[in-house]
Amino acid sequence: MVTIKDIANRLGIAVSTVSKGLNNASDISEETRQLVLDTAIEMGYTSKKLKASGSRKVCIFIENMDYENIEQFGYEIIVGFKLSAARRKWDVSVIPTNLNLQTTEKYDSYMLRNGYSGAFLLGFTLHDDWVKQLNKTTVPTVLLDNYIEKNVHVGYVGTDSSEGIDSAVSHLYDLGHKKIAFLNGAKNSMVSEQRRQAFVNSIIKHGLIPEENLIRYGYYVPDCAKDHVPGFLEDGATAIMCASDLIATGVIAEVLKHGLRVPEDISVIGFDDLPIASQLSPSLTTIRQDRTDLGKSAFLLLDGLVHGISTSKLLLRAKFITRESTGPRKA
Amino acid sequence: MVTIKDIANRLGIAVSTVSKGLNNASDISEETRQLVLDTAIEMGYTSKKLKASGSRKVCIFIENMDYENIEQFGYEIIVGFKLSAARRKWDVSVIPTNLNLQTTEKYDSYMLRNGYSGAFLLGFTLHDDWVKQLNKTTVPTVLLDNYIEKNVHVGYVGTDSSEGIDSAVSHLYDLGHKKIAFLNGAKNSMVSEQRRQAFVNSIIKHGLIPEENLIRYGYYVPDCAKDHVPGFLEDGATAIMCASDLIATGVIAEVLKHGLRVPEDISVIGFDDLPIASQLSPSLTTIRQDRTDLGKSAFLLLDGLVHGISTSKLLLRAKFITRESTGPRKA
Repeated sequence: MVTIKDIANRLGIAVSTVSKGLNNASDISEETRQLVLDTAIEMGYTSKKLKASGSRKVCIFIENMDYENIEQFGYEIIVGFKLSAARRKWDVSVIPTNLNLQTTEKYDSYMLRNGYSGAFLLGFTLHDDWVKQLNKTTVPTVLLDNYIEKNVHVGYVGTDSSEGIDSAVSHLYDLGHKKIAFLNGAKNSMVSEQRRQAFVNSIIKHGLIPEENLIRYGYYVPDCAKDHVPGFLEDGATAIMCASDLIATGVIAEVLKHGLRVPEDISVIGFDDLPIASQLSPSLTTIRQDRTDLGKSAFLLLDGLVHGISTSKLLLRAKFITRESTGPRKA
Repeated sequence: MVTIKDIANRLGIAVSTVSKGLNNASDISEETRQLVLDTAIEMGYTSKKLKASGSRKVCIFIENMDYENIEQFGYEIIVGFKLSAARRKWDVSVIPTNLNLQTTEKYDSYMLRNGYSGAFLLGFTLHDDWVKQLNKTTVPTVLLDNYIEKNVHVGYVGTDSSEGIDSAVSHLYDLGHKKIAFLNGAKNSMVSEQRRQAFVNSIIKHGLIPEENLIRYGYYVPDCAKDHVPGFLEDGATAIMCASDLIATGVIAEVLKHGLRVPEDISVIGFDDLPIASQLSPSLTTIRQDRTDLGKSAFLLLDGLVHGISTSKLLLRAKFITRESTGPRKA
């Protein structure tokens, strides 16, 4: 196991200087501090203080995702994680991040300097600086909805979209729909690509033809509906599946604007089952992601990684929920 | 929640009779007992005794897999499961199964009658009677290496073969091998199909051509080597990857029988990293499945299912281990 002395020997500096560097003391230069941190990380050092104390400090980094109240996607994920963490007496900090934090300091360095044993990353994309650094990190890290190849210290937690999407397509098919559109979330995200593939597979499985003009990438906001719904309607879609409940609210608004009714003229299906889904009128047929369980599972995965169990993927089942926003295809 | 009274009402019989049926009493007819069990299962009944007691009874069903000593594949999986279960004071029975047990009684009925809260199934195939019944079971159940669609009570634990296989192909490619054969395990198994696909993908990714005559299904025993190795050698293979270490031992023996040396003439790679892999001469380059962690993960998954967390998949990383059975392609 790497000690402070090993780091001091490698750098040819005093143990006390290494200690100052690791503990963020103010009486050493910024360069020395960074050199100590970089070397410590490279050598795989973990502070004894961390290891000895039963309680661990971990953090949840979050960006591009709302989480402040129970109506929002991230809220219950964080609650689930904290619930599980509390039982093990882990101390959890929730840290909103932005590009600035990521460019100011490297991920491993930030984690070591702040004494975090691990992290759960929410809302990050593969383009984020810190996510790019995860190929080489030695810090136990769990990502929601994104996968890092071949690093035993990083795991991926998410919902298996394909079964939920297949159930939704079956439901629409049974109601007589043949022209089913899919308004996806943002491009260049692993989960969006998985959902597109699942949708195409299910359409083919049901003997229908996947039409490129009915399968579009949008964004995870209601507003993206107005760019795509007119085209869907023009092309004869009688049902629109969405990659989130929020997108579905935008789709319903857009459908109404065209003088059509949901579900009498157009059926609409959401994704997530946020609280709003059951409160809408008509209430929203949707594919549920259990967010509390996602948070709990992320904790389990992180706990495993901290103890050397290299889980690469943990996927929850999606649950299809039928409500009022879907109905038989108009004859 | 379904009570004994509900079952009695449904069947129009006395509560005491239902109780006798559920508790395996000898003073009721076999038909009544079965009727009570079937109805209890259909109604989703779980015995209060089970729920109230902090300690749970679960079982590991095992077939087609050796597990009696540490040299064998199943041994550490069971140890890992039991270690995790012991911490939660769960009582674990290991039950070797066979076709007979499976045809005598339905899975759900067996579980309820014996008071098991859940099970971990090792070595089963998709053709097994009990596995076929898992589409509809309400008993929390974890399968090694097999997946059941759309049932929230069933989860799948395994090792993500694709990364390990890709690392192995990269390793051989870097050593100059262009004709790489793959001797797989038994056909009609989900994990064999995944490995075949991973191998083909990796071969293509490395700019090589997947040749059908170099990609064969065998069985998870050394003996299957003699049916395929002669063909591989004839077709010019200079490296042979195997779906298990045991298959690799058979492959090495067969290569030697042809007057060739490992690794000077032919490189061989195993799968699993059983204890024998490092003891062989030459020691075996292989793809490690951490079996203790598989067992621990199966427990975590089962624990989640028992508490209503529907994990569908939990995959561990595979780790590629370089030893002496691989070397540069002969010039």
